[in-house]
Amino acid sequence: MFSEKRVRSFTEKIFKAIGCSSKDAKLAADVLVSADLRGVDSHGVARLAGYVRLYDLGRLNPNPEIKIIHETASTAVLDGDRGLGLVVAPQAMRLAMKKAKRVGSGWVAVQNSNHFGIAGYHAMLGLDQDMIGWSMTNAAPLVVPTFSKEKLLGTNPIAIAIPAGAEEPFVLDFATTAVAYGKMEILQRLGKPAPLGWVQDAQGDPTDNPHAVREGGGLVPLGGDREHGGHKGYGLGAMVDILTGVLSGANFGPWVPPFATAGFHSAEVEQVGRGTGHFIGAMRVDAFQSTENFKGKMDQWIRRFRSAKSVEGKHVQIPGDQERQFMAERRAQGIPLNEKVVESLAELGTRFNVKW
Amino acid sequence: MFSEKRVRSFTEKIFKAIGCSSKDAKLAADVLVSADLRGVDSHGVARLAGYVRLYDLGRLNPNPEIKIIHETASTAVLDGDRGLGLVVAPQAMRLAMKKAKRVGSGWVAVQNSNHFGIAGYHAMLGLDQDMIGWSMTNAAPLVVPTFSKEKLLGTNPIAIAIPAGAEEPFVLDFATTAVAYGKMEILQRLGKPAPLGWVQDAQGDPTDNPHAVREGGGLVPLGGDREHGGHKGYGLGAMVDILTGVLSGANFGPWVPPFATAGFHSAEVEQVGRGTGHFIGAMRVDAFQSTENFKGKMDQWIRRFRSAKSVEGKHVQIPGDQERQFMAERRAQGIPLNEKVVESLAELGTRFNVKW
Repeated sequence: MFSEKRVRSFTEKIFKAIGCSSKDAKLAADVLVSADLRGVDSHGVARLAGYVRLYDLGRLNPNPEIKIIHETASTAVLDGDRGLGLVVAPQAMRLAMKKAKRVGSGWVAVQNSNHFGIAGYHAMLGLDQDMIGWSMTNAAPLVVPTFSKEKLLGTNPIAIAIPAGAEEPFVLDFATTAVAYGKMEILQRLGKPAPLGWVQDAQGDPTDNPHAVREGGGLVPLGGDREHGGHKGYGLGAMVDILTGVLSGANFGPWVPPFATAGFHSAEVEQVGRGTGHFIGAMRVDAFQSTENFKGKMDQWIRRFRSAKSVEGKHVQIPGDQERQFMAERRAQGIPLNEKVVESLAELGTRFNVKW
Repeated sequence: MFSEKRVRSFTEKIFKAIGCSSKDAKLAADVLVSADLRGVDSHGVARLAGYVRLYDLGRLNPNPEIKIIHETASTAVLDGDRGLGLVVAPQAMRLAMKKAKRVGSGWVAVQNSNHFGIAGYHAMLGLDQDMIGWSMTNAAPLVVPTFSKEKLLGTNPIAIAIPAGAEEPFVLDFATTAVAYGKMEILQRLGKPAPLGWVQDAQGDPTDNPHAVREGGGLVPLGGDREHGGHKGYGLGAMVDILTGVLSGANFGPWVPPFATAGFHSAEVEQVGRGTGHFIGAMRVDAFQSTENFKGKMDQWIRRFRSAKSVEGKHVQIPGDQERQFMAERRAQGIPLNEKVVESLAELGTRFNVKW
């Protein structure tokens, strides 16, 4: 177990070492550590070496000049200038919130960015100001559309954060696939088979091979096969790709550039746009009704669902509950990091002369 | 087979017979017939008798005074005055589009409405004006959250319509369940079992009983069980419920009033808001980039996905393709209506002295 403080301080120093400003390094570290705290291990400091590799490859600008390149009162397109998505996405959210303050809602499509960490982080930035936050990103292709043998979509997550009153907020944050790729990596480490319905092989048939994605197969969209609604998950992932990629002027579909750690993507890809794309939104609650009234209703909603009659040994959770449980545990007991991740951090420490 | 013209004209006359204005009757008929043409038989004129029953029950106001009760430059809440959702939702979309014209995007939450037909219809209204349209509604509870034995959510559909250039638009329209309830009704009529993963029984166990929803069970969210991502489908349905119900001031969760035909809902329910809720949005494409450029990219997106290497005997479809195939067939050959639906229409004809 590693203390939050230690992991955070180290991560911040590494981002500074590659040239990020103190402010950006602090923010980027906060996004990564928040993933580790919330139990989304695949998107936490496990990826730090990957961001550094993006920098080494010349694909990451540690001091981006993030610019608005198109806007209306309630919308904008932001050029991330090849900055860390971890920094670009919060700035997009601040812009969305500024617009929401003025005209009720704000919607910002982002081009020329990189991997932005967990989608939920950015969506949650509006909660303090009683705003509903949205966050989506596209990503390099790992996912097969229904009936496709080719991977054409990323795991394209959607997050929405909705404030409540006395209750904790509703925070939904999910990949538009049956499971996130991180689950495959866990099975690979453990040498265990995957449940059927997570992944298909190169022929397009269901398989339990957790290495299938690297071997010509692909992750299956949320819903699984056509009979069980997989075409809906495909449609949802496609919607995310279009809003984040096409609408922003970023790359889209099979052309989204790989995150540096994913060695099984082709290194060179044709460009149909600029970098990775995000889509970020904010709506003021009081642009619809009184905040007090809304929060009271949200509490009622949450309590009703939480108290539903449930199957034996289980209870109905509210989106965000699981991540909050992780957070409470890990703040108290520390963050578990697997051996390989610790090794990668130690290596970064040596390289940049930062004590791990 | 019944001609589009015949079905449309009859439907329009029935809506007029219950007191709708000519304009509203025409619009409501258009929404229903468009469902039949697009192959969404469960949401077409099969429901006409249901809307009339809503009227008989005093729950439907044929001449609603639809009012804006809260607004900002980019948002509004509309009171549907117990009107037909078929008429209220297009009005909400027109308001959203008006706001989008002025400030880039418009978002309208609707309370005090009724069943609005197919979600896609309303989302598609912006296509002609190069807008991306969104449409969601909540509905009476048929769906169990993950690990719940109680039905707390409707099939809560999401539609998004995105314009393209030379290609047909991208129109995604889906219930946030493994399957829509209409699929169950078809199996009930045929006396066939349901595939596992569509529905659970009163104990919360998987079942192939197509009557399970009426017998204490419930529809399963998109994704199926927890292992296959069902909690994501639950979260998505919950998001729709909150945006359409809580944010608008309508009913939400288990309190959403039943559509009149669904006899297995309890007739009296506590009210936590007003009527059924919708959430409708419009974003101008040129609030983000030049329309011409966007449409060119959309065509490229669509062609790339359509030409994906596919499993044998299948090909990758674009959301909207299937509905367009139905529409072409049915415009040419007529609309198939099952015996019970024809009977219900004949009865309405007799009652209102309208020739079927």
